[in-house]
Amino acid sequence: MHDQNDPIHKPVVVIYSGGMDSFTLLNRLLSEGNTVLPVSFHYGQRHARELECARQVCESLGLKHQIADIRAIQGLLGESALTSDTAVPEGHYADANMRATVVPNRNMVMLSLAISYAISQKAGAVAYGAHGGDHAIYPDCRPEFVERMRAVAAVSDYEPVDILTPYLNWDKTRILEEGLRLGLDYSQTWTCYNGRDKACGRCGSCVERLEAFAANGQTDPLPYETAAGADT
Amino acid sequence: MHDQNDPIHKPVVVIYSGGMDSFTLLNRLLSEGNTVLPVSFHYGQRHARELECARQVCESLGLKHQIADIRAIQGLLGESALTSDTAVPEGHYADANMRATVVPNRNMVMLSLAISYAISQKAGAVAYGAHGGDHAIYPDCRPEFVERMRAVAAVSDYEPVDILTPYLNWDKTRILEEGLRLGLDYSQTWTCYNGRDKACGRCGSCVERLEAFAANGQTDPLPYETAAGADT
Repeated sequence: MHDQNDPIHKPVVVIYSGGMDSFTLLNRLLSEGNTVLPVSFHYGQRHARELECARQVCESLGLKHQIADIRAIQGLLGESALTSDTAVPEGHYADANMRATVVPNRNMVMLSLAISYAISQKAGAVAYGAHGGDHAIYPDCRPEFVERMRAVAAVSDYEPVDILTPYLNWDKTRILEEGLRLGLDYSQTWTCYNGRDKACGRCGSCVERLEAFAANGQTDPLPYETAAGADT
Repeated sequence: MHDQNDPIHKPVVVIYSGGMDSFTLLNRLLSEGNTVLPVSFHYGQRHARELECARQVCESLGLKHQIADIRAIQGLLGESALTSDTAVPEGHYADANMRATVVPNRNMVMLSLAISYAISQKAGAVAYGAHGGDHAIYPDCRPEFVERMRAVAAVSDYEPVDILTPYLNWDKTRILEEGLRLGLDYSQTWTCYNGRDKACGRCGSCVERLEAFAANGQTDPLPYETAAGADT
């Protein structure tokens, strides 16, 4: 992992979607004194709310924000609820129907590009918010995948690039707990798969987010279409 | 490696630049009876001659050719002689100045996208033309890199994707020898870093290509600006 005592303190590229996990990660890295280079990917999401959150947060923090528009490669990717007109499945991530939300190999694509960016910026590492809640259905969020990607990133260029995933074995509740301890304002994030004025409170992302707030005894500052958020 | 006796004979995605190595690889896979899905990457090369060769070859072979335009991600990548206005270095690949031709982490980016494509097409493998001649200066052409990428591709999605690199320990002379045995017409390929009417005969790519033809006792069918090709 990143050595705080390293006299040559290299920047860290962070994959920052604008959602709550990567928002917490970004702020954690800043709180540790890192020079942070946030990069967001525009891959044809159904809506731009997360990216807009990311842009605003970076602006307010005075960070150089790189948005990589990779929509042109959409033709290569398979069908996905996140990028097509298929209905967004409701319920828990762990449900089988949430598989429809998977963009095949998305994390490998984003990590590869982030590593290229890290090399070009002489950064020492790429951080991303893989966490335990996603292990069940996203193969590219599992420890096995991360370990193997770290092995690749160590030899793909002249200088090794590390991959940092401090939340790899945390669930969303614990990530939020850290963020609340850091005093973060989660109204600066967007999680809902739908891009309407208020969060829907019913999609897998909303359900998990609301559960994390409930488990921390807090109320999500975002407005929801449903009365108290999720009705599950 | 790909099992010819596999009753479920899955397609193979091949990364096809239009140059001689991937042209030979494509035809080798076809001669083995594979269903081949060629994909080319438009990442901001100085000229489009290789891609145009790739397009024409796929058309003549009746293959569905996928061109992934990834120029939009150029902002993420560092400076490179292949994509900027820097002068193209002359001489052998092994020379230190040829490092300037490296797009950082390019093979990882292309492999990641090709793996996404393979997953979406239910292909069993991605083939690419990494070969021994590139080991000296391209970290992402070395056996160590390939082995580690294979390990990642085995776990990045629900179905493993294999990575095939039959030329990994071959030099260009041996690749050409195979292609000539297959009766391939190398006027259908382009290798020169420059995109003029005739190949320059002086850049690293031309020098290697001409050496391979000479070692096979053959004359390159491409026209050259230099009298007998390279003057080295």
